Amino acid sequence: MAFAGAEAEELENHNDCLVRLSNPNVATMKEDVLYHFSLSTSTHDFPAMFGDVKFVCVGGSPSRMKSFIKYVAEELGFDRPGVDYPNICAGTDRYAMYKVGPVLSVSHGMGIPSIAIMLHELIKLLYHARCSNITIIRIGTSGGIGLEPGSVVITRQAVDACFKPEFEQIVLGKRVVRSTDLDKQLVQKLLQCSTDLSEFTTVVGNTMCTLDFYEGQGRLDGALCSYTEQDKQAYLRAAYAAGIRNIEMESSVFAAMCSECGLRAAVVCVTLLNRLDGDQILSPHDVLTEYQKRPQRLVGYFIKKSLGKA
Amino acid sequence: MAFAGAEAEELENHNDCLVRLSNPNVATMKEDVLYHFSLSTSTHDFPAMFGDVKFVCVGGSPSRMKSFIKYVAEELGFDRPGVDYPNICAGTDRYAMYKVGPVLSVSHGMGIPSIAIMLHELIKLLYHARCSNITIIRIGTSGGIGLEPGSVVITRQAVDACFKPEFEQIVLGKRVVRSTDLDKQLVQKLLQCSTDLSEFTTVVGNTMCTLDFYEGQGRLDGALCSYTEQDKQAYLRAAYAAGIRNIEMESSVFAAMCSECGLRAAVVCVTLLNRLDGDQILSPHDVLTEYQKRPQRLVGYFIKKSLGKA
Repeated sequence: MAFAGAEAEELENHNDCLVRLSNPNVATMKEDVLYHFSLSTSTHDFPAMFGDVKFVCVGGSPSRMKSFIKYVAEELGFDRPGVDYPNICAGTDRYAMYKVGPVLSVSHGMGIPSIAIMLHELIKLLYHARCSNITIIRIGTSGGIGLEPGSVVITRQAVDACFKPEFEQIVLGKRVVRSTDLDKQLVQKLLQCSTDLSEFTTVVGNTMCTLDFYEGQGRLDGALCSYTEQDKQAYLRAAYAAGIRNIEMESSVFAAMCSECGLRAAVVCVTLLNRLDGDQILSPHDVLTEYQKRPQRLVGYFIKKSLGKA
Repeated sequence: MAFAGAEAEELENHNDCLVRLSNPNVATMKEDVLYHFSLSTSTHDFPAMFGDVKFVCVGGSPSRMKSFIKYVAEELGFDRPGVDYPNICAGTDRYAMYKVGPVLSVSHGMGIPSIAIMLHELIKLLYHARCSNITIIRIGTSGGIGLEPGSVVITRQAVDACFKPEFEQIVLGKRVVRSTDLDKQLVQKLLQCSTDLSEFTTVVGNTMCTLDFYEGQGRLDGALCSYTEQDKQAYLRAAYAAGIRNIEMESSVFAAMCSECGLRAAVVCVTLLNRLDGDQILSPHDVLTEYQKRPQRLVGYFIKKSLGKA
């Protein structure tokens, strides 16, 4: 029987926004062990645990992702005095996961491989839980190019170390290239949230995603370095000219995988330093701590506004 | 004045084995902040804290590296009842670091970028501490090819996903390729230790290092998968024919960086499953826990023997 009118449209929209896997095998598996989360479909009721999730926020550091869930709980009025937020992945120390209401907060460690493992298992988790209309945002730290430290960058496009908007991977020994598209509407919504808040500088720019923090980002202070300050400056200035405003280590695979699986995705990172001025992160601890709260404040406000609570 | 005979030889050997950086800039820096360790040369006395280190063991999981330091302390007779081992990197949750006597135990997270950040800072730490004669061993977990689960692999050569003994990196937008040589003598010594112990199967073989755990290792159970069981089997069997006995995600950059900086290095990983038989890690928790202790037992015994205590 066919649905008619608004109902059909709603159903269609709903189905459009279900989390989809790009792998037919998973639907036929009797059990799915999400090894690095220490969760399994045979021991955990994913629809009951996660079915109401609408916003997923991910970031490198487990303690930062715990702070974020506390902050969001307060902002959304879910906070109960004396109630702690247990780590859903307590059975492993690979990742940490917290939930409050429709918000899931997950750590991903550092670098493309680390976030990729987490995303494979997270996307399967959302699929098994039959989640729909998911928005996923990476809230992270980065090195800025030509920006005041503390500025926040919303990523227009994630690019590789050659400034190309591509994520390259070796699958069965062969090169596979995926695009790193992010949701344009979501970028504008987040930028509007920053304007609403008016607390810190926020720009939209390209984000370079590298496989290394030292040589891979042109730093002069690693254990290995075979180029000069001039070489480094030329590279960073070329990056700036290509529209790159910050450098981090996860955005490209995050954009590629989320786009492939139909998740509306954004990357919001604060810049801890201006790489044109140096390589070492020398700001005092309390200043860095405050910087790291900025993506949390922006995304917390975005969630509040999306839920009609702002 | 020149030293003569045995003295000169000893001095030469000593100097040969100092940790060297492949970066002239670090020697000229007034302060060196090891950001991801939350340690700095201006706030910590590296020679006093780390000058006596001779063995560095690294592994993905922070809790496993804490278990290892406790185990080594017991084995070497450094254990004091009721004394805990504090995390030297307590100021950050990026990595964990423990020390007992001449042994340093450091976690590195998952994947090449994560271990590379750690190694840049670790090698600088050892350099600032003026350490000499360092042996560094990665003790990890892996997927086996054609081996009984629980077998331990000592890496002969780390190879990439195309089976080449190379580590490729993008530096200032250009491709740089480094060799992934490991210390041959150390491989033989570790194999002898396994024979001495006679507790579990240990083989010497090539180790494939990939940038992804799912598609990058030919798994059929990720969120994304575009190939068949047959394609996967063909790839893994070709890997086996190329001498590959296990797959993990850190060995190539570990070998490349240690070799570049004059560190005697080895990789010892237990296999948690036989990839020819499946993709999911389904063994019971206690079985996996016992497997994960095997590299620790082997390397703990090696250290004990090296110190003349076995």
